[in-house]
Amino acid sequence: MWSHRHLLGIEELSASDIDAVLDRADRWFDRSAERKTTTLKGKTIINVFFEASTRTRTSFEAAGKRLGADVVNVSSSGSSVSKGETLLDTAKNLEAMRADALVVRHQSSGAPAFLAGRVDCAIVNAGDGAHEHPTQALLDAFAIRKAKGRLEGLVVAICGDITRSRVARSNAILLGKMGAEVRLAGLRTMMPKEAETLGSTTTVVSRLEDAIEGADVVMMLRIQSERLTPGEKGAPASPMSTTREYSRTFGLNATKLRGAKPDAIVMHPGPINRGVELDPYVADGDRSVILDQVEAGVAVRMAVLDLLLSS
Amino acid sequence: MWSHRHLLGIEELSASDIDAVLDRADRWFDRSAERKTTTLKGKTIINVFFEASTRTRTSFEAAGKRLGADVVNVSSSGSSVSKGETLLDTAKNLEAMRADALVVRHQSSGAPAFLAGRVDCAIVNAGDGAHEHPTQALLDAFAIRKAKGRLEGLVVAICGDITRSRVARSNAILLGKMGAEVRLAGLRTMMPKEAETLGSTTTVVSRLEDAIEGADVVMMLRIQSERLTPGEKGAPASPMSTTREYSRTFGLNATKLRGAKPDAIVMHPGPINRGVELDPYVADGDRSVILDQVEAGVAVRMAVLDLLLSS
Amino acid sequence: MWSHRHLLGIEELSASDIDAVLDRADRWFDRSAERKTTTLKGKTIINVFFEASTRTRTSFEAAGKRLGADVVNVSSSGSSVSKGETLLDTAKNLEAMRADALVVRHQSSGAPAFLAGRVDCAIVNAGDGAHEHPTQALLDAFAIRKAKGRLEGLVVAICGDITRSRVARSNAILLGKMGAEVRLAGLRTMMPKEAETLGSTTTVVSRLEDAIEGADVVMMLRIQSERLTPGEKGAPASPMSTTREYSRTFGLNATKLRGAKPDAIVMHPGPINRGVELDPYVADGDRSVILDQVEAGVAVRMAVLDLLLSS
Repeated sequence: MWSHRHLLGIEELSASDIDAVLDRADRWFDRSAERKTTTLKGKTIINVFFEASTRTRTSFEAAGKRLGADVVNVSSSGSSVSKGETLLDTAKNLEAMRADALVVRHQSSGAPAFLAGRVDCAIVNAGDGAHEHPTQALLDAFAIRKAKGRLEGLVVAICGDITRSRVARSNAILLGKMGAEVRLAGLRTMMPKEAETLGSTTTVVSRLEDAIEGADVVMMLRIQSERLTPGEKGAPASPMSTTREYSRTFGLNATKLRGAKPDAIVMHPGPINRGVELDPYVADGDRSVILDQVEAGVAVRMAVLDLLLSS
Repeated sequence: MWSHRHLLGIEELSASDIDAVLDRADRWFDRSAERKTTTLKGKTIINVFFEASTRTRTSFEAAGKRLGADVVNVSSSGSSVSKGETLLDTAKNLEAMRADALVVRHQSSGAPAFLAGRVDCAIVNAGDGAHEHPTQALLDAFAIRKAKGRLEGLVVAICGDITRSRVARSNAILLGKMGAEVRLAGLRTMMPKEAETLGSTTTVVSRLEDAIEGADVVMMLRIQSERLTPGEKGAPASPMSTTREYSRTFGLNATKLRGAKPDAIVMHPGPINRGVELDPYVADGDRSVILDQVEAGVAVRMAVLDLLLSS
Repeated sequence: MWSHRHLLGIEELSASDIDAVLDRADRWFDRSAERKTTTLKGKTIINVFFEASTRTRTSFEAAGKRLGADVVNVSSSGSSVSKGETLLDTAKNLEAMRADALVVRHQSSGAPAFLAGRVDCAIVNAGDGAHEHPTQALLDAFAIRKAKGRLEGLVVAICGDITRSRVARSNAILLGKMGAEVRLAGLRTMMPKEAETLGSTTTVVSRLEDAIEGADVVMMLRIQSERLTPGEKGAPASPMSTTREYSRTFGLNATKLRGAKPDAIVMHPGPINRGVELDPYVADGDRSVILDQVEAGVAVRMAVLDLLLSS
């Protein structure tokens, strides 16, 4: 039984909550289902994005519209935000317009939780700072379950800039709750001290190859190129060599992928830096489920909006 | 009987026109009413915003969509405007796409009226320069009527930068037509010479306290911080001291509010500069109807679009 | 019988394809038809604009919505594009969200065709570099047919910067296929060497007056003011004199228009540089069908989306 008024993070969800989302998403993923419904007719969903995003905003917008809701987009440029309005005032104003849900992306960790305690409409976290990106972890879980039939007992390698990745955090927490084993790998400078406490089944390894060894799932994270600048601790001397060096040590290619299970799948939250963290042949290869993740995204967001707003 | 093809300003409306909007808005405000209707099905409303605005554009967009219209947003960035097209050509083009209404915000006073004489579709003024912001005044009137049961005979204090405020202008005109008494207060440099001719019941006072004395409604205006720069006539020597000084003399706090009637309400068109024109405790206090204004906004804009486009 | 999965250019269309679009557009142009239909209910159309455009994006958006589709806008600013994602990855991602059509405007010639070979959803070219702008040519043909009753046998003068104009290219090709005679005129520096091979009925003349002589249709192109800078081959010495000089030699005014047939119509794809390529009196005169073109645009785009996505 779903009992949440907001979706702030995976941390707040139980395993059965997660199952509830994935099962509901199955229904919306089904291609034989009606494409446009009246499930959320009369509801107003406002996407409030303080950080740029194509894929997440577009995915939520398509999800809301397919459910029959009215969807309105607000971005930080051209908004009251640039006039110095506080985050809470912005949210209170949108709520006062009888918004039923605010889908919030914000550069500050905890911004959606802050709002959730102060407004009555549903708050959906669409990514907050380095904290959580719960619908991303849910869509990843959906894609894994589609490919593997289950989550429990799987070995999942997550590789990249763990420190700054809300995607890694939400995934590690979710996979721990669902009984999958998580292995984190990344540059020393990109691994938080408390990494092993992310999720109940997480271990940290220092080499990509060790994370991949025998894995069912290899999830590569987008690397921010500005993170590969010389001068950072542990980074080589020039940007060029850094990117090449990163790609050599922590980038995934077909050779390294051979260490994983023969039927291992490759994931990436996008947008991909081709040739940096992921070799194009792997990104486009038959082990890649990257576009399945995107497809799952709309169904999972429909499920989340449906669970939060229907009743 | 509503007979207008456009909503250009409060100036053009009679008291019974204003009542017609407020009465129609009552219908859309009612929470038991259907949230999504087909009232304007098949109509196309285009929001043409030459100035940034979250709240007004979002409010009009939600209003149009709840009435079942197709709503399209055009903003000046990324538009033909940046290619040097004239305002009239832009409007004529959008009309040629069979837009039924253009909701226009423009930095120049009179831009909507200019268009109204030259296109056949309905023009709704969503704020033009320092001229008028009629839907703001209508939603303010709606919120006052909700709180006080009437407009006639009330004493309304309006405080801030009167010279540049289309909100003040539209409100003063509306309140005069509806038989309320208006008192304007603000820095000498922010008070137009002809202020007393704004509305038929307007007086100008020099101190905030004099405006508030015995008032039923205290309406604070947003102060543009760039207006508080040293060097302007009547402004103190440094920006810091200016803001502090403005807040001390023309900002509203609980102490000053005690001069108003015990059941006086506090209003603000938003976005609020907390701590400048309005003390946060007053903004969030039980006398504040600021969020009621926002809620009224959608209903009033539904009423306006409905009156202009139905039939 | 329409058999195309994409609309990439006029080049790929037969005369009977063109007739099919125009006939279908007739149906949607009819003012007595239902304004809002369920023709494309359940379909998702994503406008992906890598170049700014008001009129084309708005026209496609209105068209999709009137057909009952869900329409989502993505622009290059604030998108993954600015994060370095490839064009193909962007398109593949949007397709994975089960977009039924991507309406693509891109600064590079061939971008839509590149995508069409690599995605399954429909690609509609909304203007690519200096290559084609097929819906513009189709709406122009629609407007001409409305005014003249036919395309075959007409003499159409197209004047301006032919080299950079996808509008000129698409029109010349379309008119050739439909049996109209095309005359191109423009500054030597604005005329491509292969101009006479654009369409099967195209001739190049050096003076505007020669192109206009006896024409049924005079189509003026928007001139990019940055093209009129001193130093370009064949351009006068100062920008001021250049613009004035361009207007004098290649701008259309009432005097020059007298050389055309007495019932000749004047067209322009917009936005107009009034006083440069087109005299305001002609732009707004009774021979101008410029706003008819815009009106035709929505109907033609409805026809294209309907033909590509229905069935």
